[in-house]
Amino acid sequence: MQALIVESQTDTGVRLVTDRLPPTPAPDEVLVQVNLAGICATDLEIARGYMGFAGVPGHEFVGTVIEGSDQLRGRRVVADINCACGTCDFCQRHLPNHCPHRTVLGIAGRDGAFAEYLVIPARNCHVVPDEITDQQAVFVEPVAAAAHVLDDIDFAANPRIALIGTGRLGLLTAQVLATQATHLDVIGRNRRTLKLAREWGLTTMHVDTIRNEPAYDVVVECTGNPAGLAWALRATRPRGTIIVKSTYAEPAALDLAPIVIHEFRLIGSRCGTFPRALELLRNNQVNVDPLVTATFPLSDAQAAFATAAQPDQLKVLIQPEHA
Amino acid sequence: MQALIVESQTDTGVRLVTDRLPPTPAPDEVLVQVNLAGICATDLEIARGYMGFAGVPGHEFVGTVIEGSDQLRGRRVVADINCACGTCDFCQRHLPNHCPHRTVLGIAGRDGAFAEYLVIPARNCHVVPDEITDQQAVFVEPVAAAAHVLDDIDFAANPRIALIGTGRLGLLTAQVLATQATHLDVIGRNRRTLKLAREWGLTTMHVDTIRNEPAYDVVVECTGNPAGLAWALRATRPRGTIIVKSTYAEPAALDLAPIVIHEFRLIGSRCGTFPRALELLRNNQVNVDPLVTATFPLSDAQAAFATAAQPDQLKVLIQPEHA
Repeated sequence: MQALIVESQTDTGVRLVTDRLPPTPAPDEVLVQVNLAGICATDLEIARGYMGFAGVPGHEFVGTVIEGSDQLRGRRVVADINCACGTCDFCQRHLPNHCPHRTVLGIAGRDGAFAEYLVIPARNCHVVPDEITDQQAVFVEPVAAAAHVLDDIDFAANPRIALIGTGRLGLLTAQVLATQATHLDVIGRNRRTLKLAREWGLTTMHVDTIRNEPAYDVVVECTGNPAGLAWALRATRPRGTIIVKSTYAEPAALDLAPIVIHEFRLIGSRCGTFPRALELLRNNQVNVDPLVTATFPLSDAQAAFATAAQPDQLKVLIQPEHA
Repeated sequence: MQALIVESQTDTGVRLVTDRLPPTPAPDEVLVQVNLAGICATDLEIARGYMGFAGVPGHEFVGTVIEGSDQLRGRRVVADINCACGTCDFCQRHLPNHCPHRTVLGIAGRDGAFAEYLVIPARNCHVVPDEITDQQAVFVEPVAAAAHVLDDIDFAANPRIALIGTGRLGLLTAQVLATQATHLDVIGRNRRTLKLAREWGLTTMHVDTIRNEPAYDVVVECTGNPAGLAWALRATRPRGTIIVKSTYAEPAALDLAPIVIHEFRLIGSRCGTFPRALELLRNNQVNVDPLVTATFPLSDAQAAFATAAQPDQLKVLIQPEHA
């Protein structure tokens, strides 16, 4: 089958191969024919050597089950990317995303979605309702991650919320927040994505116009830049919450004293649950189609990676062409 | 009256004056004759210019009410150091410690306890039970701050807890944690204070022997050094809690990615409530007497400051000699 593999010798860090055997599902797994897959920032990092991953990257996908599990065969599915052991302390506590023995689709110990076929445990699969298109379903994983911020905000207290960073994750998170927030300011640097947010009815502010005053009960940090967190430490009211969605590649020199002085709660927020994301998409509460800036066939996946690395791109998709 | 004032021209940053008029209480305030006061790290910082404070420092004290409030006159009291406006949003939400208009005894906008007399709002006062000595009562404010960590730990989940840093605040916090924790490791660098902790029945570890493995559900950071937080980020289990008690004077360069990857909750923790601290002291659940390493008369308060700045000192007290 065609598949993209991590290959440090190329410009993009990936290389298309055509002679890879389709994977064979284990007894608890299903074989999935990939319909469509999305490139995210983590994939670009992996192509640069992050996680030391060898194999097929790709973890945002929608596909059709063609082998294994009678209930799922023929169904269109998306899947949780963390494949947990099911027996450790974290799995017992229903925290499979933190299982220390887990493999992660296209990220750690398990081939991913930039291929014609992949295998995944049947229990990880979620059937996609007909109302959701393939292009929308590719966003289930990042929408789930975005929606996870809802778990750490007490909306009953009517908080003033700022979201800073209007890249892919920021734009999804902003829409999810808007489903429950009564006061939300969406703050970014990119005038094009801020315009998109305004078209969705959101209140936006350019970073050049924001003030360094504690004006928010909750700040959601999606910039991927320590400067975003530094601003959050100035803009959050005493006893407020800072939700950190983005990881920083380099150690950041920050004045952390405000965390104690103002008794902030800094909460790291990563993956979320798929059923909630499917519900948000099915109800059109999150608009993802405008985020797709390019779609490439799998045969041209190296070009897709080169394009996805451009700063003006939001979501770049890869589509296998099945015979 | 005798009083110590901040004075940048001296070696210690403070100077004793003898001609200061005793303060006059406002209608809602009481006049307190100071029995005993304690020097804390914040006082040493203030003497070095922190907060730009001018006037009499000192906020850990026990005294006797001699004017104002019929209910309190003649009673031995300690007092909340934050004097809030009572009307703003934070005061309405019962968060007077974060009132933006507040004065803080001996720290911001209000003369403090290194003097023969001080004034404080009557509503800030708490009567000290007879079982608690003056020397113990001086510790109510730091014991309250230590006990505040209990608010952010779910002991019902039987968490594995580490406390790192065995200075004054660390030793108090360790004892408070021990009243509820079933698994507590007390980690420090100073062999003398670790020995003290062992004498209280606590399990101790020297920093040179600890491992960089995620072994704890909760880490309480009391070192005052960013290295303590860096270790906490390595030693906390996924979804665990890091309670930050100490502020860092300098911006710290830290790898913050684990906060998101492992979904940590980082909680800044500062002041606590006095009634709980009085209860802990009255029940002998916190042993404070061994922490007193020196007591000076107010007339010798400059020497007290010089002594308190020595690394081998724990708590240094100042005692006015009333006529």
